[in-house]
Amino acid sequence: MSSQPKVVLAFSGGLDTSFCVKYLAEDRGYEVYSVLVDTGGFSEEELQAIEANAYALGVKHHTAVSKTREYYEDCLKYLIFGNILKNNTYPLSVSAERIFQAVAVAEYAREIGAQAIAHGSTGAGNDQVRFDMAFRIIAPEAEIITPIRDLKLSREAEIEYLTQKGVQRDWKKAEYSINKGLWGTSVGGKETLTSQKYLPETAWPTPVSKTEEETITLTFEKGELVGLNGETLTPVQAIQKLTELAQPFGIGRDIHVGDTIIGIKGRVGFEAAAPLIIIKAHHTLEKHVLTEQQLYWKEQLANWYGSLLHKGQFVEPVMRNIETFLTDTQAHVTGQVHVRLAPYRFYVEGIESPYDLMSSVFGSYGEMNNAWTGDDVRGFSKVASNQVMIYQKVSELAEKN
Amino acid sequence: MSSQPKVVLAFSGGLDTSFCVKYLAEDRGYEVYSVLVDTGGFSEEELQAIEANAYALGVKHHTAVSKTREYYEDCLKYLIFGNILKNNTYPLSVSAERIFQAVAVAEYAREIGAQAIAHGSTGAGNDQVRFDMAFRIIAPEAEIITPIRDLKLSREAEIEYLTQKGVQRDWKKAEYSINKGLWGTSVGGKETLTSQKYLPETAWPTPVSKTEEETITLTFEKGELVGLNGETLTPVQAIQKLTELAQPFGIGRDIHVGDTIIGIKGRVGFEAAAPLIIIKAHHTLEKHVLTEQQLYWKEQLANWYGSLLHKGQFVEPVMRNIETFLTDTQAHVTGQVHVRLAPYRFYVEGIESPYDLMSSVFGSYGEMNNAWTGDDVRGFSKVASNQVMIYQKVSELAEKN
Amino acid sequence: MSSQPKVVLAFSGGLDTSFCVKYLAEDRGYEVYSVLVDTGGFSEEELQAIEANAYALGVKHHTAVSKTREYYEDCLKYLIFGNILKNNTYPLSVSAERIFQAVAVAEYAREIGAQAIAHGSTGAGNDQVRFDMAFRIIAPEAEIITPIRDLKLSREAEIEYLTQKGVQRDWKKAEYSINKGLWGTSVGGKETLTSQKYLPETAWPTPVSKTEEETITLTFEKGELVGLNGETLTPVQAIQKLTELAQPFGIGRDIHVGDTIIGIKGRVGFEAAAPLIIIKAHHTLEKHVLTEQQLYWKEQLANWYGSLLHKGQFVEPVMRNIETFLTDTQAHVTGQVHVRLAPYRFYVEGIESPYDLMSSVFGSYGEMNNAWTGDDVRGFSKVASNQVMIYQKVSELAEKN
Amino acid sequence: MSSQPKVVLAFSGGLDTSFCVKYLAEDRGYEVYSVLVDTGGFSEEELQAIEANAYALGVKHHTAVSKTREYYEDCLKYLIFGNILKNNTYPLSVSAERIFQAVAVAEYAREIGAQAIAHGSTGAGNDQVRFDMAFRIIAPEAEIITPIRDLKLSREAEIEYLTQKGVQRDWKKAEYSINKGLWGTSVGGKETLTSQKYLPETAWPTPVSKTEEETITLTFEKGELVGLNGETLTPVQAIQKLTELAQPFGIGRDIHVGDTIIGIKGRVGFEAAAPLIIIKAHHTLEKHVLTEQQLYWKEQLANWYGSLLHKGQFVEPVMRNIETFLTDTQAHVTGQVHVRLAPYRFYVEGIESPYDLMSSVFGSYGEMNNAWTGDDVRGFSKVASNQVMIYQKVSELAEKN
Repeated sequence: MSSQPKVVLAFSGGLDTSFCVKYLAEDRGYEVYSVLVDTGGFSEEELQAIEANAYALGVKHHTAVSKTREYYEDCLKYLIFGNILKNNTYPLSVSAERIFQAVAVAEYAREIGAQAIAHGSTGAGNDQVRFDMAFRIIAPEAEIITPIRDLKLSREAEIEYLTQKGVQRDWKKAEYSINKGLWGTSVGGKETLTSQKYLPETAWPTPVSKTEEETITLTFEKGELVGLNGETLTPVQAIQKLTELAQPFGIGRDIHVGDTIIGIKGRVGFEAAAPLIIIKAHHTLEKHVLTEQQLYWKEQLANWYGSLLHKGQFVEPVMRNIETFLTDTQAHVTGQVHVRLAPYRFYVEGIESPYDLMSSVFGSYGEMNNAWTGDDVRGFSKVASNQVMIYQKVSELAEKN
Repeated sequence: MSSQPKVVLAFSGGLDTSFCVKYLAEDRGYEVYSVLVDTGGFSEEELQAIEANAYALGVKHHTAVSKTREYYEDCLKYLIFGNILKNNTYPLSVSAERIFQAVAVAEYAREIGAQAIAHGSTGAGNDQVRFDMAFRIIAPEAEIITPIRDLKLSREAEIEYLTQKGVQRDWKKAEYSINKGLWGTSVGGKETLTSQKYLPETAWPTPVSKTEEETITLTFEKGELVGLNGETLTPVQAIQKLTELAQPFGIGRDIHVGDTIIGIKGRVGFEAAAPLIIIKAHHTLEKHVLTEQQLYWKEQLANWYGSLLHKGQFVEPVMRNIETFLTDTQAHVTGQVHVRLAPYRFYVEGIESPYDLMSSVFGSYGEMNNAWTGDDVRGFSKVASNQVMIYQKVSELAEKN
Repeated sequence: MSSQPKVVLAFSGGLDTSFCVKYLAEDRGYEVYSVLVDTGGFSEEELQAIEANAYALGVKHHTAVSKTREYYEDCLKYLIFGNILKNNTYPLSVSAERIFQAVAVAEYAREIGAQAIAHGSTGAGNDQVRFDMAFRIIAPEAEIITPIRDLKLSREAEIEYLTQKGVQRDWKKAEYSINKGLWGTSVGGKETLTSQKYLPETAWPTPVSKTEEETITLTFEKGELVGLNGETLTPVQAIQKLTELAQPFGIGRDIHVGDTIIGIKGRVGFEAAAPLIIIKAHHTLEKHVLTEQQLYWKEQLANWYGSLLHKGQFVEPVMRNIETFLTDTQAHVTGQVHVRLAPYRFYVEGIESPYDLMSSVFGSYGEMNNAWTGDDVRGFSKVASNQVMIYQKVSELAEKN
Repeated sequence: MSSQPKVVLAFSGGLDTSFCVKYLAEDRGYEVYSVLVDTGGFSEEELQAIEANAYALGVKHHTAVSKTREYYEDCLKYLIFGNILKNNTYPLSVSAERIFQAVAVAEYAREIGAQAIAHGSTGAGNDQVRFDMAFRIIAPEAEIITPIRDLKLSREAEIEYLTQKGVQRDWKKAEYSINKGLWGTSVGGKETLTSQKYLPETAWPTPVSKTEEETITLTFEKGELVGLNGETLTPVQAIQKLTELAQPFGIGRDIHVGDTIIGIKGRVGFEAAAPLIIIKAHHTLEKHVLTEQQLYWKEQLANWYGSLLHKGQFVEPVMRNIETFLTDTQAHVTGQVHVRLAPYRFYVEGIESPYDLMSSVFGSYGEMNNAWTGDDVRGFSKVASNQVMIYQKVSELAEKN
C-alpha cells in the first residue's frame, strides 16, 4: 500500500493542467489521479490522446468519466424546461458544463478517498469558484489545491518548468479560447475583451456553409425533445443531430455580457444553434399549452435556477425543489414545432399539440363565440376596474378637502 | 343650449365606428362628439379625410387629439427603460397605443361633460376591456355605450344599415387586419388564427427592399434614445427615423402568442424594427452600466408593468410607482450602441459608455488583476459554500442515525 | 324517470339557501338536490338537523359530503407548508373552506348529471365569485342559478315568501355573522364594517377561560403536524385538539383588512388559535432546517398560492405545480417545536430537529470555529463588494470628466 | 507634519476596540483616529466617558459623529415605508445600525485621508462583513486592519496585553451581549446559542413595569410617524417617545432565527416595542389606502431591501432605486392609527384616513351597493374562469384521444 497521499486532479490535457500533474507529483509528492469528465465535448480519439498524455506526465491513474446522459438528465433538461437564457441571451453553455464536471470530479475524489483535490483554474474567472464550491460541498474533507491560481505563473514559466522536467510539446496559444460542449461553444478573446467590438466571421468555430432555407419539425414529449423531422431520438441524440443540422447556418451566434461571480462584468461570444432553437421552440409550445399563471411562475423560478447554476450553486437544495416544480409543469408540453432555418437566423412557424389552449372550439381571438357574451365582458371590466375607480374618486375627494 | 345628451365616440373612420356615429345620433338621439387620438400613426391627409367623413356621417363635432409626444413621454419611454417585450417577443405595439388612446378619449369626455362615452370594439378582443376600464376609471359618471358589442351585427348588416341611412362607401375588408403605430405594426388574420401557420411574405406591410448590411449608432442619454448616427433627435423623431431606416430590411417581424385579457390564447403577427432594435441596444448598454441587482429588479418590475399595461391597467397607481423606479435606474444609461443591420436580422456589435463597469481599469474577465487575489476568491468560495456544505453534512448525519 | 331538470344546490340550512330550495322547486320547477360539504365545521346533530330541514323544505335528495380529510390533504396542508397568512395576518380560514366546498358541490353536480347548479350568495362578497368560478370550470355544462343575487330580496321579503309557502321558523339574525371551520372562525359585522373600530370582547365566539400559562410541544414530520405533547395524532385530529387547547386562551384573534375579489376593501375579524400557532411553529422549524434560498422561494410561491386561493383560483393548474414544489421542500421539516401559551398570546420557545442547520458542530454564530478563517471572510467581503466598489469608482471618474 | 500613517478606528470603548487602539498605536506605529458613530444609542455622559477613555488609551484624535437624524432619514424611514421585518420577525435593529455606522466611519476615513481603517470585529459574525464591505467600497485606497479577527486573541490575552501596557480597567463580561439602539435592542448569549431555549425574564433589558392597558394614537403623514397621542413630533422623537411608552409593557420581545452572511444559522433575542408597533400600524394604514398591486410590489421590494441591508449591501445602487419606489408609494399613507397596548402584546384597533379605500361611499363588503350589479360579477366570474375552463376541457379531450 502506498504511503503517498492521493490527489484527484480535474484534467483537460491543456498546458495548465499538465503543469499541475508534474507539480503535484514531483514538487508536492502526491499520487495524482487525473480525471476528465466527458459531457459530450470529446471524440474517442481525443479521449485516448488525453489519457496517453496523462500517463506520460506521470499520473498514477487516469479516468475518463462519461457523463453525457447524466448531464442532460440532471441539468440540461431543466434548462430546456425553464427556457433558460441568461440575461435573455446566453444558454449557459459553459456554466452548466463546468459545474456539472466539478461535481463529478468531487464525487470521484470522495469515492477513492483522496486527501486532496485540485483544479487548474486561474484566479480571474468563474470556473475557480465553481470548482472550489463543488469540491468543498461534496468532498469537504479533501484539501483543495489550485497551483495555477496560487503560483500565478505565466504561460512561459509553465512551459519552461515542463521543459526542464522533460516534457516537450507544442503549447501553441490559440487566438481565441474555445470551449466546445453539448450545449454550445463559447469563444473568448480579443474583441470580447473590449466593450465595443464584435467577433469577426473567422472567429466562429463553425463556418457558415448552408444557405438554402429549410423547415424542420421538432417533437416534444412532456417538455423533452424526442424527435427531429419525424425520427425518434433520445434527447441527447436530438441535440447532437440538431447541432449538425443547424450550426452550419451560422444560427445562434451572439455575444453575452454578464456579471461574473467575482463581481466584474464579462463578455463572451458563443455559437449555440441547437440550444437557441430548442428553447425558442419549447417556449412557443408552452405559450400554447400552459396557463398565463404557469408561464409566469416558470419564468421566475427558471431565471433563478439559471442564475444559481451560473454561480456554482448547483448543489443548493432549492435547485432540486425548482426541478420538481419545472418537471410538474411539463405534463402537457407535448407536440410538434415547425421551425424555419435560414442563414444566421431562424423562426418558429407554428405548433401543433393536443393540449393547445388556442383550440378553435372555444372561440378565436377577435371572433365572437359562445363561451361568453359582450355583457359578461362588460361586467368583467367593471369589476376589474373597481379598485382603481374607487382610488381615483377617493383621491379627488381627499384633495378637495 | 342643446337639450340632447352628449356622447363622446372613439372614432377611427372604419366601418364599425362609422356605424356607431349614425346609430348614436339617429337611433339613440345623442349629439355625437367624435374623437381620434393620434399617437403617431396617421398622416395629415388621413386625419383630414377622417374628419371629413365624421362630419359627413353627422357628428356634432370632431376632434383629432395629437398625443404623440405624450404617448412617448408617458408610456413608450418606460417600455424602453424596462426593455419590455411581452412573452419575450412582443413590444406591446397595439396594447400600449390602445390604452393610451382610451385614456385620452375618457379625459376628453370628462372635459366636455359628456353624459355618455362610446367605443366600437366587438366582444371578442382585448380592446373592449381597455376602453371599458379607462372610461370607467377616468369618467365614471358617463354611461358606456358599445353598439357593436351589444348589437352583434355582421359586417353585412352594418353596411346595409349605413346604406339605408344614405352612407355610400367602399367598405372593402382587407385580407389582414393591420394596426400601424409609432411602436410597431400588427398584422392579424388567416394564418394567425391558426396555431401552426406563419404569415407569408406578402402579408407584411413593409416589403423587404434593403439587402446591403450597414452599421448604425444609437445614442442614449439617461435611457432615452436621443441620437442616430451622430444626429441629435428627439426620441419620437429617433423612433420614426429608425423605423424608416430599418424596417425595409424586414427586421423585427415575428408572431406573438399570448394570453388575452379575456382568458383565451391569441396570436398576432407584427413588424417592429425600431422597437426591437432600441430595446436590444438599450438592454445591452444596461448590462454594461447597471449592477446585477439593478438588472434583476428592473426586469421584475418591467415585466409586471408590461403585463398590467397589456391588461388595460395603465391608470393603476402602482404603474406610477414603477415608472419612478425605472426612471431612477437610468441615471447611468448613457452611451453609444453600435448595431449591425442585415436582411431580416440585426445584432448589437458593442457599446461605449463613460459608466461602463467593464472598464479595463479594474481587470478584465479571465485576466489577473490587482483588485483581489486568488486567496480572496478561495475565501469567497469557502464562505459562499458554507450553508450548503453544512446542509450536506447534517443530512448525512441525520440519515445515519 | 323524472322529466324535471335537476339542480344541485349548495345548502347550509340558513335563510338564504332555504329560500333557494323553495324557489327552485316551486317557482322554477327543478328537482332540488341539496348538498352540504362538511369540512369539519359541523357536529353530527347539526348535520342531522340540516338534513331534516332540507327534506322539510322539499328537496328531492339531500347529501352531506364529508370532506374533512380531503380538505386537509388537498388544501390546508399546503397552507401550513407555505406558512400562509394573507397580508401577514389572516390564515384564509373562510377563503380556503369556501372554494373547497364549491369544488365539491360542482363535482357532485357533474356526477349526478345536473342541468343546473345553484348557490345562495349575494352579489356583495367574495363567495359568489368562488362558487361561480368553481361551478363553471368543473361543471361547465350546468347552468348557474343564483336566486339571492339575482332577485335582490331583503331578509324580510325572503321570510315572507317562506311563510307564505308554509315554512315557519325563527330566522333570527345574529348580531355578528360567524363562520366556524376547521381552520378558524370568522366574525363579521358592526365594527368590522368601519375602518376604525375593534371587536368587543363579547363578539368573539370563544370566551377566554384559561389564564394559566403552559408550554406545549408540537411534533412535525415532513412539514405535517403529527403529534401534540407526545401523543401521535392525524393532522386533522391535531388541529382539532390544538384548537380545544389553545382557543380558550383567546389566542389568534385579529382583524384582517384585505382586498376582495371584486375590488373593494373588506375587514373581517377572526379567531384562529390553532392555525396561527401551527404556522408560527412550522415556520420557526423551517428557519432552522431549510436554506436561505429555500425559505425565499417558498415564501414567494406560498404567498401567490394564498392569493390565488383567496380569489377562487383553486383549480388553476399552477396551484398543483406550486403544491409539488412545497411538498418537495418539506423533506427535512421534521422535529419538535415548543410553544408557550398565555392569555391572548403565545410564543415559540425553541425547536429540536435532526436536520437543524444551527448544529453546534459547525461553529456557533458569534463564536470562532474551524470551518473557515478570518482570512476567508476577508476574501469573501472583498469579492462580494467588488461590483459596487467598481461602480463607485467608475461613477467618480465619469463625473470628473 | 507627522510622518506616521493615520488609521481610523471604529471605536466603541469596549475591550476589543480598546485593545485595537493600543495595538495600532504602539505595535503598528499608527496615529489612531478613533471614531464613534452615534445613531441614538448613547447618552451625553456615555459619549464623554468613551472620549476620555480613547484619549487615555492614546488616540491622536477622537470624534463622536452624531448621525441619529441621518440614520432615520437615510435608513430607518425606508424600513418603515417597507414594513420590513426580516423573516417576518426581526426589525433589523442591529443590522441597520451597524452598516450605517460602517459607512459613516469609512466616509470619515476618506475625509481625513487615512492610510488605514480598522474595526474590532471577530471573524465569527455578520459585523465584520458589514465593516469590510463599507470600508472597501467607500474608502478603497485605505488598508483594512482587523486586529481581533487576525490575532485571534482570547479575552484574557487582550486583558493581559492591556495590563502590561498600563491600562487598568474592570473588563467584566456581561452574561448577555446587549446592543441598544434607536431601532431596538438585541440580546444574545446562553439560550440564544441553543436552538431550543428561550430567554428568561431577567435577560430582557427593560423589565415589565406597566400592566394597565391603554390605547394610543399614531399619526402618519406620507408614511412617516409625525405624532403620538395628538402631539406633533419629529420621527426620531416619536420613535424615542414610543419606546419609553411601550417598552415597559414588555411589548416586541422575540427571538429571531436567521441566516448570517457567512452561511451559518444564528439566533438572537431582541426587544423592539416601537419598531414593531410602528410597522404594524403603518402596514395596517397601508392596507386601507394602497391598492392590492401597490401592496404586492412594496412587499417584494422591501423584503429584498431588508435582505441586502442585512448583508451589508447598503451602498448597492439598487437600494437607492428601491428607496425611490418606496417613497413614491407613500403619497396617500396619511392618517391616524389607534393601537391598544397591553402587557407583552398590542393590537391595532383601527385607522382613520382621508385616503381610506374602504370608504362606505362605494359600498361595504358584504352589503349591496350601486357601483356594480350581481350581473356584473357573474360576467366577471365567467371571464376570469375562462382560461382554466378551457384548460380543463382541452385536457379531457386530449386524454380521451
